[in-house]
Amino acid sequence: MYEAGDVRVEDVPEPSIVEPTDAVIRVTRASICGSDLWPYGSLEPTETGRPMGHEAIGLVEEVGAEVRNVKVGDLVVMPFAFSDGTCAFCHEGLHTACVHGGFFDGYGTSAAQAEAVRVPLADGTLFPLPVGEDDALMPSLLTLTDVMGTGQHAGVVAGVAPGKIAAVVGDGAVGLCGVIAAKRLGAEQIIILGRHEDRIALAREFGATDVVSERGDEAVERVKELTGGFGAHSVLECVGHGQSLETAIGIARPGGAVGRVGVPQEETMPASQPAFFGNIRIGGGPAPARAYIEELLPDILEGRIEPGKVFDRNVGLEDVPDGYRAMADRESIKVMVTP
Amino acid sequence: MYEAGDVRVEDVPEPSIVEPTDAVIRVTRASICGSDLWPYGSLEPTETGRPMGHEAIGLVEEVGAEVRNVKVGDLVVMPFAFSDGTCAFCHEGLHTACVHGGFFDGYGTSAAQAEAVRVPLADGTLFPLPVGEDDALMPSLLTLTDVMGTGQHAGVVAGVAPGKIAAVVGDGAVGLCGVIAAKRLGAEQIIILGRHEDRIALAREFGATDVVSERGDEAVERVKELTGGFGAHSVLECVGHGQSLETAIGIARPGGAVGRVGVPQEETMPASQPAFFGNIRIGGGPAPARAYIEELLPDILEGRIEPGKVFDRNVGLEDVPDGYRAMADRESIKVMVTP
Repeated sequence: MYEAGDVRVEDVPEPSIVEPTDAVIRVTRASICGSDLWPYGSLEPTETGRPMGHEAIGLVEEVGAEVRNVKVGDLVVMPFAFSDGTCAFCHEGLHTACVHGGFFDGYGTSAAQAEAVRVPLADGTLFPLPVGEDDALMPSLLTLTDVMGTGQHAGVVAGVAPGKIAAVVGDGAVGLCGVIAAKRLGAEQIIILGRHEDRIALAREFGATDVVSERGDEAVERVKELTGGFGAHSVLECVGHGQSLETAIGIARPGGAVGRVGVPQEETMPASQPAFFGNIRIGGGPAPARAYIEELLPDILEGRIEPGKVFDRNVGLEDVPDGYRAMADRESIKVMVTP
Repeated sequence: MYEAGDVRVEDVPEPSIVEPTDAVIRVTRASICGSDLWPYGSLEPTETGRPMGHEAIGLVEEVGAEVRNVKVGDLVVMPFAFSDGTCAFCHEGLHTACVHGGFFDGYGTSAAQAEAVRVPLADGTLFPLPVGEDDALMPSLLTLTDVMGTGQHAGVVAGVAPGKIAAVVGDGAVGLCGVIAAKRLGAEQIIILGRHEDRIALAREFGATDVVSERGDEAVERVKELTGGFGAHSVLECVGHGQSLETAIGIARPGGAVGRVGVPQEETMPASQPAFFGNIRIGGGPAPARAYIEELLPDILEGRIEPGKVFDRNVGLEDVPDGYRAMADRESIKVMVTP
């Protein structure tokens, strides 16, 4: 990406092993993330361009001398952050705070909307799959790299539990996965806040019981009507704007929690006093997608959840620029890339 | 209080039973709260004056026809909020969100810096004490009305647990009670951020292991040095300014939590992005002091904690205005009132 709206497909040098803990994977599936749309909307012009993409499944092509847990030929999930798997934070399940870890794409690291990608800390980062590269479950498995783990994180941080009321702010791919997460964590009522018909239909299929298409104060009023006047125990904030966080706080029940996973676009959080007087907890951040794979994978392999339905378009590498456009124009919920 | 800095002692009509669920108590001890200093610093001039005080112990003098749990002559703790004890929120232990509840003082309700006070919802609100009105434990028992419960709430929301590192932002009475709470919840290391010598000495007596007198970025750096570079698992924010919340977020370990109990003075919360990228949870609000009495009372009666040490001055009603001045000037940590 050279600047906002300018995505180009270019030949770059093949990635190779740099550190003995690296692996190089041949990408079999990648995807465009909602968070890729932030720079797509605002990136300042750059001469060198920024490699894009942090969600991939691929075949291990080469491993460094110290890699033990994955071997050449393994089909692996590459979560959007790399992590050593051994530090205190990884042991606590917060791989996105790994002391040696980091994020893919951006400048200076490899990126996944490509034929191949260099994966640092391969042993801690990659998760081998028990299926072949063209398995029918591939779209759902691909969501383990980010959006399904992110929706799960929002639900966990928001404290979704059996019998509770959950509300999901945002009907993008993460919000839709948030609905799946809320349902599998046992929520009794699941309210989705969104206004795109195709997405709402999918939300209902995933388990949403109510839809609120209003925004701002009207949305808050509507959610309160739907929840006996008090709001939702657990709110999953899946957008990242100040306005959506304000709505999330507004629809939380006193003593409730907001799990935010939308990358915040503003420096401050809104509604400090309402959050305080309602004793509302606000948590969340980059999801430790790696930590959630073990829990979510059986549900996908055994067909209990189908997050892969968020992919409504599949493109080759040459059509990645159009994939960005389609997602930015809300023509597509989420785009899969098959190099 | 007629305006900022203008506190007067006046004869007003005796409070009386209005609702059949009311009680009237004869105040034996009251106190000035750190939160009273906010209007003391900023109240706009008012013709009618604002009754002040929300922390009291007293003897029940009269009860309404429907009051069952307390009787005339009982010595009772009056927490700073009244609550019915029967609604969904009271059952969840969040009495400060009681659907029929509210706060003392302000306009239109009775207040506790007085000879007597009307207590709505007496059955749910008042907690009878097993001691006499002049018991030596009275200062510590008086903290159950607010500051000790509030410090406890900060610790609970911040997730203090055995072996964890806690940090307390603010060395006022609530911060000092936060140190007590952190210690009784099992924190291994307790860092107090403050700069008043007398308060720091008391914090050390209460269990603080480290003192950080720097502010802002320097305080953040110092706490990181003291915690192996990562920050505290649990941060108790006991001030309420944006700057103190920013410091609280800055010194929290990734995956950690901030329990804020200082009444927020700004509309927005700072450091949205640092909080997000560190997966830091921010919670707290008005403490359900009523809920914590049962847990804290035995520790006071059996001498395991002595939060009453935060009172360093005792005045009669006529000297309440000077009590405000002394607290505002930081001459006194907290003032007890014996009418």
